[in-house]
Amino acid sequence: MSMDTIITIGRQTGSGGREIGQKVAKTLGIPYYDKELLDLAAQKSGLSREFFETQDEKRVSSFLYSLVMDSPTPGFSNTMSGMPINHKSFLAQFETIKELAAKGGCVIIGRCADYALEENPHLLSIFIHADYDFRIKRIMEEASLSETKARELINKTDKSRGQYYNYYTGRKWGVAANYHVSLDSSRFGIDETVEFICSMAQIKSQRDEII
Amino acid sequence: MSMDTIITIGRQTGSGGREIGQKVAKTLGIPYYDKELLDLAAQKSGLSREFFETQDEKRVSSFLYSLVMDSPTPGFSNTMSGMPINHKSFLAQFETIKELAAKGGCVIIGRCADYALEENPHLLSIFIHADYDFRIKRIMEEASLSETKARELINKTDKSRGQYYNYYTGRKWGVAANYHVSLDSSRFGIDETVEFICSMAQIKSQRDEII
Repeated sequence: MSMDTIITIGRQTGSGGREIGQKVAKTLGIPYYDKELLDLAAQKSGLSREFFETQDEKRVSSFLYSLVMDSPTPGFSNTMSGMPINHKSFLAQFETIKELAAKGGCVIIGRCADYALEENPHLLSIFIHADYDFRIKRIMEEASLSETKARELINKTDKSRGQYYNYYTGRKWGVAANYHVSLDSSRFGIDETVEFICSMAQIKSQRDEII
Repeated sequence: MSMDTIITIGRQTGSGGREIGQKVAKTLGIPYYDKELLDLAAQKSGLSREFFETQDEKRVSSFLYSLVMDSPTPGFSNTMSGMPINHKSFLAQFETIKELAAKGGCVIIGRCADYALEENPHLLSIFIHADYDFRIKRIMEEASLSETKARELINKTDKSRGQYYNYYTGRKWGVAANYHVSLDSSRFGIDETVEFICSMAQIKSQRDEII
């Protein structure tokens, strides 16, 4: 049986969403896209990879910045020519996500992929969260930070991800009804969470085959 | 193996939360509490069952109403004597929930039970949601209502449940991070959702035994 389920993972900072996504992709034998998306979107748009890195899941709110128009790129969607550069980078990722999903089952981390693919019948959209202490501990270990710095990083990154999601989707980041499944990784542990997601993806894939 | 996991289920109107809760309780062989809670809380507080029914998961915002003080009830917690009557009914349910959970595994629907039991190590808190069309269809069938009336009922009941939850818990109803698991019953179907919850409860119960 081929796995055609497309799993998108939104995540609170420090909840282990990336590790969970990697393990799910490995278990199911499907591709995994996180920062890889930026390379593909950069190639597509003609904008630099570095530009995508600085913009990644951040909503640039400066009015002046949004007025930086980009010149038309040969071979790139005409509708994007002359568009503010931050919107252009969002739309390049949006198109890239749709193209990847059209190829078959995969795991995509963040970047409003659940919204980009909401009409896709193979979508299984996940949100991973965890209690604050678990996240602080994880970030302290992963990034070798003090507790204060880990706290600052979590608050800043979550705020930024939330603003980016809310701005581009018109929905509220982290509200349960926007995702098919939300899971507390600190309650179940990383490996158990991976197991749940794999089992749900397999059930969904079997159902899709019947339909 | 005894099932000591306490499953609380918050739910959007029409998402099938009650049916899911009943099936989970039956599968796991544990008690189920929904309206049953009101009888127990009424006995406990000395207030009438009818009063609990009219108050059920509704936040009475009228200032005058909240000033209706109740006289002390013999045998009932002294801290509640002379308290506004709507707060008294909330606290009677709150205490009832804690007492039921102390007896062992069970399923409790709504009434901020996740908040009442947040310190209980056996808690597995669930939020069930579903897409709007699925919920309208379910309510039309269940309550024999027109589409317009079903829509009105859903909007009114969800608003009321949200206000009640937010007021008494200081959290936001339906925000993923407030629950251990949130599931879209329209994506998986009622029986699959039941299966997921039972499997999670069993894994949690096994873990609790080891710890």
